[in-house]
Amino acid sequence: MKVSRRALLAGAAGVVALGKTAAMQASQAPSDPSKVRGKPSRALGQRAPFEKPQRQPRGVASSGTPHQDLYGTITPADLHFERHHGGVPEIDPKTYSLLIHGMVERPMVFTLADLKRFPSVSRVHFLECSGNFGGRGTATELTPQQLAGLTSTSEWTGVALATLFREVGASPKATWFLAEGQDAAVLTRSIPVSKAHDDALIAYGQNGEAIRPEQGYPARLLLPGWEGNSNVKWLRRIELSDRPFMTREETSKYTEPMADGTARIFSFLMDARSLITYPAYPVTLSRGWVEINGIAWTGSGKIRRVDVSTDGGATWTPARLQEPVLSKAHTRFRHLWNWTGGEAVIMSRAVDETGYVQPTRDVLIAARGVSSVGYHVNPITGWLIRPDGTVVYRAEPW
Amino acid sequence: MKVSRRALLAGAAGVVALGKTAAMQASQAPSDPSKVRGKPSRALGQRAPFEKPQRQPRGVASSGTPHQDLYGTITPADLHFERHHGGVPEIDPKTYSLLIHGMVERPMVFTLADLKRFPSVSRVHFLECSGNFGGRGTATELTPQQLAGLTSTSEWTGVALATLFREVGASPKATWFLAEGQDAAVLTRSIPVSKAHDDALIAYGQNGEAIRPEQGYPARLLLPGWEGNSNVKWLRRIELSDRPFMTREETSKYTEPMADGTARIFSFLMDARSLITYPAYPVTLSRGWVEINGIAWTGSGKIRRVDVSTDGGATWTPARLQEPVLSKAHTRFRHLWNWTGGEAVIMSRAVDETGYVQPTRDVLIAARGVSSVGYHVNPITGWLIRPDGTVVYRAEPW
Repeated sequence: MKVSRRALLAGAAGVVALGKTAAMQASQAPSDPSKVRGKPSRALGQRAPFEKPQRQPRGVASSGTPHQDLYGTITPADLHFERHHGGVPEIDPKTYSLLIHGMVERPMVFTLADLKRFPSVSRVHFLECSGNFGGRGTATELTPQQLAGLTSTSEWTGVALATLFREVGASPKATWFLAEGQDAAVLTRSIPVSKAHDDALIAYGQNGEAIRPEQGYPARLLLPGWEGNSNVKWLRRIELSDRPFMTREETSKYTEPMADGTARIFSFLMDARSLITYPAYPVTLSRGWVEINGIAWTGSGKIRRVDVSTDGGATWTPARLQEPVLSKAHTRFRHLWNWTGGEAVIMSRAVDETGYVQPTRDVLIAARGVSSVGYHVNPITGWLIRPDGTVVYRAEPW
Repeated sequence: MKVSRRALLAGAAGVVALGKTAAMQASQAPSDPSKVRGKPSRALGQRAPFEKPQRQPRGVASSGTPHQDLYGTITPADLHFERHHGGVPEIDPKTYSLLIHGMVERPMVFTLADLKRFPSVSRVHFLECSGNFGGRGTATELTPQQLAGLTSTSEWTGVALATLFREVGASPKATWFLAEGQDAAVLTRSIPVSKAHDDALIAYGQNGEAIRPEQGYPARLLLPGWEGNSNVKWLRRIELSDRPFMTREETSKYTEPMADGTARIFSFLMDARSLITYPAYPVTLSRGWVEINGIAWTGSGKIRRVDVSTDGGATWTPARLQEPVLSKAHTRFRHLWNWTGGEAVIMSRAVDETGYVQPTRDVLIAARGVSSVGYHVNPITGWLIRPDGTVVYRAEPW
């Protein structure tokens, strides 16, 4: 059906609409679908055979979410990013237990059934690996998945860690706790007790169902807004103390070198970041109105604003934010733009409720004082739209 | 590990906690998981082999959501209920089109790519089949899935129907539109145009990904809060008119007989309802503190309150509602209760923002004037907890 594009300003609300003037021809009678019965109901649904979103494994230890294929804010559970240090263990929920001990009045062991008897809470939160920046080097053929696939958002359900700390009688002198996983790496991290009194959960539910194996089945620590590795999965032990434990993952890894030769440690907070997921590589854009959209998130609370530039950062316009904007959750932003065909660089910049502004690469490096930043890399990024409509990552050397 | 139950009042907030006094014995060293590497990363996650939630097909044309297995508010896409009238068609998104014609200035055909170029919106909404009441007869061994499995909640993404109506230049005299599906039943319903100006969407996204086949892939009509069948799936045609079309599905079906021998027609709105999903058949409860929880929803907007009774309706207490309470979406409610072992009937009652109160069976029948109500059946329901802890549906003859 031959059509021509146009854009028109329509409606009292001044909504810019777009579409095609394809008047239906009387000769084009619709097909008759009534002669073929469709598929019957079944116990589990499947994706349409035309849709094949997939995580992209990087080695055996991680895989990223295909943001370029997604809408809204919820990440389907089988597309939630994964990152593990000794593979995904298989844990029988009947034998699972969580020990809480150390500086407590009553050391206790909780079964999964025990955890589920406590008052529960459900909250939508993002998780993000602190190493979630795939933009190093000069590669331009990078998808949103490659650039920032190691973040995802789910509705988590579990019991507040503060509830369990009251149950065991945590000592008021305890300021840190160790979280230990039941994976082959026995991943351990030291966490300030204050986070338990803020919003930490022991989560056993994800997007309505039991948490998935790669996300810590049957139960994990959830520290909303804090770097992924501290949200210890397959959680089997918590030990309260009055000092951090200085584990392998906070000495040899997950620290950031600073200009003076020391290393930043316990850098839990994930700062504000945004990512345009459409248009992005490998899309080829056609001229006319296009809704630029993407996700923004911050470990500090709610996203206050996302600015979009379509001129390489010379000017910025606030995007529409999808309501409800939830704390420490992906927020979808959208900005309508008329691409008239020239070369253009589109970029996004998140601002969170604390006033923190997503930095440029140069600002980020200047703040750290070193150029070899490995973790917590959240610079403003962009996409170059070429005159032929192809879209590539607008790389800066890193 | 031998444990004894107890309940304790802990913390300044007066939170009632529950748990076990299982002090860890020093002899019980934790197992060493470090000798077995876990599974590597992969392109698509899978459920833990211990978790087998399933829809329950009733014949070939429907299957219900296993509410007893779920947490929070989001329904995993492969567990979203399905109801169809000619099976689930397979539609190639490349050949999909939506015709909008009738009382419009410019009849138009939109491809799926066209629909995706318009400004989009994401919103969390429930869907519910108007025949979603499985409590008829005297059966007591009914699960939440059997009782009310034909409702689910997703985050939907699509284009506002009002946007498309502006694009085609809908006549101000058009008061109804026909929505026609591309399934073998060519399901058609007449919908007031006012719903398009309220909150109707053409949805192509569900829980972050492309809409699933049973939910209308690649695009469906979404009429938040209105009975499922009017949310026409596999939508291929919309025709605007100044009167309803009186289709098969609104004459022979989807009407309610009234006392005077007439039938109620165009009864789109799904009234407020609630359902305790735990404890429920077939759980066997153990004594002590238990968090009664469930879902409540209303087509009229937000749930204002859910009352819970643990004495068969003699007294009621407001449950905690999980924030954020979203409009026309499942809302999780929770109520902590100490079951001391006697026989008890637990019930829930939803109140929505309009003040509508979920009725008893008798009130519902009296309001209609007839006892053979087939659609829109939303009475207060309960679960009988027997002294041995077994839980059954507290049936009233229907």
